[in-house]
Amino acid sequence: MKINQLLKKQGASASTASRKLRTLDKSLKDSALRAMADSLNENSDAILRANSVDIKNAKALGDDFHVIERMILDNDRVTAMVESLYKISDLDDPIGEIIESSKLLNGLLLEKVRVPLGVIGVIYESRPNITVDISALCIKSGNSVILRGGKEAFTTNSTITNIIRKSAENSGLPLDTVQFVSSTDRSLVKQMLNMDQYIDLIIPRGSSDLVNFVAENAKMPAITGGVGVCHTFVDKSADFKKAIDIVVNAKVQRHTVCNALDTILIHQEIAKSFVPKLIEKMILNKVELRVDEKTLNYVNTKSKYVVPAKPGDYGKEFLALIASVKIVSSIDEAIKHIEKHGSGHSEAIIAENITDSEMFLNIVDAAAVFANTSTRYNDGGEFGFGAEVAISTNKLHARGPMGLKELTSYKWKVRGNGQIRE
Amino acid sequence: MKINQLLKKQGASASTASRKLRTLDKSLKDSALRAMADSLNENSDAILRANSVDIKNAKALGDDFHVIERMILDNDRVTAMVESLYKISDLDDPIGEIIESSKLLNGLLLEKVRVPLGVIGVIYESRPNITVDISALCIKSGNSVILRGGKEAFTTNSTITNIIRKSAENSGLPLDTVQFVSSTDRSLVKQMLNMDQYIDLIIPRGSSDLVNFVAENAKMPAITGGVGVCHTFVDKSADFKKAIDIVVNAKVQRHTVCNALDTILIHQEIAKSFVPKLIEKMILNKVELRVDEKTLNYVNTKSKYVVPAKPGDYGKEFLALIASVKIVSSIDEAIKHIEKHGSGHSEAIIAENITDSEMFLNIVDAAAVFANTSTRYNDGGEFGFGAEVAISTNKLHARGPMGLKELTSYKWKVRGNGQIRE
Repeated sequence: MKINQLLKKQGASASTASRKLRTLDKSLKDSALRAMADSLNENSDAILRANSVDIKNAKALGDDFHVIERMILDNDRVTAMVESLYKISDLDDPIGEIIESSKLLNGLLLEKVRVPLGVIGVIYESRPNITVDISALCIKSGNSVILRGGKEAFTTNSTITNIIRKSAENSGLPLDTVQFVSSTDRSLVKQMLNMDQYIDLIIPRGSSDLVNFVAENAKMPAITGGVGVCHTFVDKSADFKKAIDIVVNAKVQRHTVCNALDTILIHQEIAKSFVPKLIEKMILNKVELRVDEKTLNYVNTKSKYVVPAKPGDYGKEFLALIASVKIVSSIDEAIKHIEKHGSGHSEAIIAENITDSEMFLNIVDAAAVFANTSTRYNDGGEFGFGAEVAISTNKLHARGPMGLKELTSYKWKVRGNGQIRE
Repeated sequence: MKINQLLKKQGASASTASRKLRTLDKSLKDSALRAMADSLNENSDAILRANSVDIKNAKALGDDFHVIERMILDNDRVTAMVESLYKISDLDDPIGEIIESSKLLNGLLLEKVRVPLGVIGVIYESRPNITVDISALCIKSGNSVILRGGKEAFTTNSTITNIIRKSAENSGLPLDTVQFVSSTDRSLVKQMLNMDQYIDLIIPRGSSDLVNFVAENAKMPAITGGVGVCHTFVDKSADFKKAIDIVVNAKVQRHTVCNALDTILIHQEIAKSFVPKLIEKMILNKVELRVDEKTLNYVNTKSKYVVPAKPGDYGKEFLALIASVKIVSSIDEAIKHIEKHGSGHSEAIIAENITDSEMFLNIVDAAAVFANTSTRYNDGGEFGFGAEVAISTNKLHARGPMGLKELTSYKWKVRGNGQIRE
């Protein structure tokens, strides 16, 4: 069968599987997830062998060090996948939850009940643990899934999905609950984005190029996310130690991710004393600071890590050990700057004054807003979701980390006893 | 200013207005809605004069009787608009609602808080009360709105929105909370669908042609809905009187709307006794029945209202006093028929056997599923929403009647005390 016909067939099979999945009991889904965990564990040698093939190919192709680092597996990483499956099996089942209910005056019983979305499509890059996490979240939420992984980890992901599929079938789930697109041909991405008759929601996980391509070309609803231009505003009422610890954490703890800090805004009233302390700590952590003219006035060191900012350094997602710095005259100016330059992902204020911090939390329009903590916490795992399929910056449907609930819809059940409308 | 520049300016103004609206107190929004009600009441003569201009034009153009009937206003209909505004002002404010909250192990306080979407665009036809209902729902949910009404009611809608805008400004809301597209030039619809930098959600209300055009051309998220191919399945355990009352109500009470019945499915075990009773009642109500071969066997009357069905009569939204009829051998066959031919809008079962009715409610995948009552109840007003902006058949974001909550998003507020991520 040609690869485009095969993908179409996978769409139809996913749709059939989803009709069965939406009525399955929690206990069956959970025991299937645990069986998958055990099966991955038993087959870890095969997974590591497949991974070594991908690593060898990637090295031969001269792939970037970061790409290889993200896709490499060892026993610990396989164990983490296995544990993730157990963790997700322990979560509450979102399906069947009665979100609201009421009895109308005419006696009709109205229930708003959580149901699966149907078929989820996911297009992602590099990390093989995504294959496991997303499969598990989709199964638990009663959805089937079509996975399109990156070519660099193709052998690893094929092996993992084969193990998951066999285990699913043995546990009584449809074989096609989880399907993996069996070719890395680029034309299949475009075809997938046109399959709105089969796929209810498409989720891109990867570079902003990928996310934008999906947003522009998908015929079905798509999650937009992954691009985080994240600000932290240090208010005049900030505790300096907290402020520096948080800013350093938000930038340095992991700088290649979407919720890492990009721009530090500093209230002018504290700039003179705060800026030198901040710069000292950031230089220690090898962070390049691109600072505005006002900030330059308070720089009392000569360091290659402190350079004048260019206009393009505001509103930019660095994904590197770089941050831009700007002094603002008020919290209003900070909020306006964020409104203009932010991407609606993760925004923080550091302030001891509660009026200021509450105002910031209320006015700033982003998926997650933080007071006195690090933007790095905008994460499904940290929020207690078990895992996440993505972090959405959409306002429709789901916003912020997407776990089980965010992979569901609802329907209205109306039970009557012969009521008719007047 | 050219009309396309004007529309772009309206987009920018709506965006500015929405930033103010999202932080307004419930009390200010509610008093503004009551002031609008009073203002419409005081200006009812002007509204009726404007309406008579539209009616005169429509008659001169030879518009369809139904179009004219829907747009015509009198004192009672103006009073209904006024009352609708009061009713919406009495509803709970969705904004600021804490949907979920938790304290994480590290001490972070996590809140999921309901916030407005931003700017809503609505493209609609005919009925001027939509202008009032949608404006009110948008204001109450903290959104600004750009309304694009049909050309047949242009004078009426212009007059109403002018009154609303003046009243909004007097009450302390931004003047551009509600804006009306000031030309009926068709090119502006396409332009509106491209204004994703300003409009967060677009809602089409009207014919399936309009809904499909919006679904295909909108760059921002759009609500799909309005097309209802609605089935009622009469199970072998049905109470015949209830079944006939409900089927007649679902078809006859108002046949031009999306939640009206289109196809009656009848369990073969009761067909012999049920079909003649059904046909008698439907003929009395002047409903044309397009029946399958099996049903023909039980027709014991010669009537122009009973004709053989063609294949295209299943899966068709009639919007007329016509219904198709089919006999099925089991509840499974009924469910499969609905799966194939339904539009995911409103589906009903009539059954005294609770196992059957619960199975139907669980398996059938539609915005609203009904047991022993009429599909006509799939309606925001009937569900207690006060009013509705549309009935969505989307699975993403909102499904079924869209009231205040369905015009909102949420954001995550995270309050800490210096927590950083390990």
